[in-house]
Amino acid sequence: MTNEELIQETFELAKEGLGNTWPNPMVGAVIVKDGKVIGRGYHHKAGQDHAEIDAIKNATESVEGATLYVNLEPCCHTNKTTPPCAQRLVQEKIKKVVIANLDPNPHVNGKGVEILKQNGIEVEHGILAKDGEALNEVFFTSQKLQRPFIHLKMASSLDGKTSLSTGESQWITGPLARERVHVLRSQHQAVIVGAETVRKDNPKLNVRLEGYSGPQPLRIVFTQSGKLPKDALLFTDELKDKTLIYTFSPLSFDFPKDQVIQITSLEEAMKDLYQRKLMNLLMEGGATLASNFIIENLIDRITVFLNPSLIGSGTSLLGDLGLSNLEGRPRLKNIETNLIGEDIFISGRLT
Amino acid sequence: MTNEELIQETFELAKEGLGNTWPNPMVGAVIVKDGKVIGRGYHHKAGQDHAEIDAIKNATESVEGATLYVNLEPCCHTNKTTPPCAQRLVQEKIKKVVIANLDPNPHVNGKGVEILKQNGIEVEHGILAKDGEALNEVFFTSQKLQRPFIHLKMASSLDGKTSLSTGESQWITGPLARERVHVLRSQHQAVIVGAETVRKDNPKLNVRLEGYSGPQPLRIVFTQSGKLPKDALLFTDELKDKTLIYTFSPLSFDFPKDQVIQITSLEEAMKDLYQRKLMNLLMEGGATLASNFIIENLIDRITVFLNPSLIGSGTSLLGDLGLSNLEGRPRLKNIETNLIGEDIFISGRLT
Repeated sequence: MTNEELIQETFELAKEGLGNTWPNPMVGAVIVKDGKVIGRGYHHKAGQDHAEIDAIKNATESVEGATLYVNLEPCCHTNKTTPPCAQRLVQEKIKKVVIANLDPNPHVNGKGVEILKQNGIEVEHGILAKDGEALNEVFFTSQKLQRPFIHLKMASSLDGKTSLSTGESQWITGPLARERVHVLRSQHQAVIVGAETVRKDNPKLNVRLEGYSGPQPLRIVFTQSGKLPKDALLFTDELKDKTLIYTFSPLSFDFPKDQVIQITSLEEAMKDLYQRKLMNLLMEGGATLASNFIIENLIDRITVFLNPSLIGSGTSLLGDLGLSNLEGRPRLKNIETNLIGEDIFISGRLT
Repeated sequence: MTNEELIQETFELAKEGLGNTWPNPMVGAVIVKDGKVIGRGYHHKAGQDHAEIDAIKNATESVEGATLYVNLEPCCHTNKTTPPCAQRLVQEKIKKVVIANLDPNPHVNGKGVEILKQNGIEVEHGILAKDGEALNEVFFTSQKLQRPFIHLKMASSLDGKTSLSTGESQWITGPLARERVHVLRSQHQAVIVGAETVRKDNPKLNVRLEGYSGPQPLRIVFTQSGKLPKDALLFTDELKDKTLIYTFSPLSFDFPKDQVIQITSLEEAMKDLYQRKLMNLLMEGGATLASNFIIENLIDRITVFLNPSLIGSGTSLLGDLGLSNLEGRPRLKNIETNLIGEDIFISGRLT
């Protein structure tokens, strides 16, 4: 077994925690002694054991002298709900630690490795680092940028239109793409829309998947004017306690004060969301809100569902981005594309 | 060897003629006797032997009593450059013929099979018929619709824009996608553009591929007003004899009369192109011309190169399509998508 193979296994173990580790990253660990795996573990859920500890607990024999593989640098500080892992590895007399990524959290970055080394533990890091970062893109990005990770989801015709000139817009994409949107919602902590979308579509923004019993995402509305239809589902349905409103102007109707945040900039909203540990957000439109977030470099990933059809004159996916030349246009990286039913799925990173 | 496997082999043989058989389809043939292949052939080039004859000539023993596999119904009429194949198969005492597709040409459709049957030859057809039709989509479509097959190629940003509001447009896609456009040109008999594209981009529309020595496509310009810049490359460069102009109004400058066709409808232009045996055309824009052709159901395939970047305000891929509801919008079928360098290739059939 090579380092790469074992780190790959930590990724697979890490994914077992998908959706449950927020605000923590997904982490997996494998312990190897005398050439054979003696323990595997992963971080199941925020507040529970970290992966290293889980693997130690699962070990079938003493881990003294063993090598521990883990996709993220062991933690070392104590201002959290679980005891630090670096110190525990020293205590358990682990001989060597192999790591994919250093922790992007400025409170940890490199310090966990330092503690290990100071205590005579051999350390290797940077193994499949790029894949490790992709696995926990939300965690890495939100830690580095100290703001929530925002995933913009859009849907349009092949020629980039979201509705006819008449305003008719539902549905452009097919049933499988629409189901995928519900899966996306289930993977995010909150769904963001602009006031225009509330007015036009009156969405519920909840997860509607057969057999789904996980948590429903919070719903977040951004409004410039503060004028919103008070009878909209987001403010009246059974999930109305899960709606937050970020508004640049006083609100036009009564809504619980702790769910209304008056702001003077998107940056202020980002800080507030970050403090609330809302780090994994899905934006679903509309064009104006999305464009404003893109202009301020607040969109980290874009996923577009393109229906292979043509609309011609109609509403475009985005509004003005304030570009003075093509060279400076926002570009997506690490593009993935495939077919979902009849529709074309395109996803890539913007930051 | 099953019928399907042998018909599949005729497809592979047929493709050897790719690009050289115009205005004929690509056809391959395999002759099987006593369970083993004794001859293979394909249509190399218009004017040369049909695939059946090529396979008979290549046969390593007498074809009497053999089974011939061919992807297209053998021809039977004599008003062409080569003797009819059906009669030849009778004469050669072929026992059975297995066919993918009947000939869509109304002069042949089913008649070749009839002659075979009347002469006691067993016939099976419809084997992998869909794949056979896809292989020769240009031939099948142009025969059925009795007009040229038109392939619309477009390029835009992910949000469907072809240029900034300022007009800046080159280059949106990357070098590999642009190279692919030259490959597309080399696979078509002619390239069509509108007057607006001539005015704005002054394109050459030729194949610029390293080491390419094949024929250059004709260049075809459509103009409503007849007003074109007489100094444009299409009218002055070394390939100017390969430029045709279809115009709704008298031309604003002198150009050889046999290269200028005055028309009152696109249908008239289609008839003229068909008579010239120009059946395999690539349209490269602009938005107005493409939209007019789409409205009149004259676009058979659309290929879009999407650069994964965002432009926001700018020129859209298409103009008005005259839609009154979403239900009636043009939809592409049989979508293929993949990455070409950094760009997303999307192609599908519209007719």
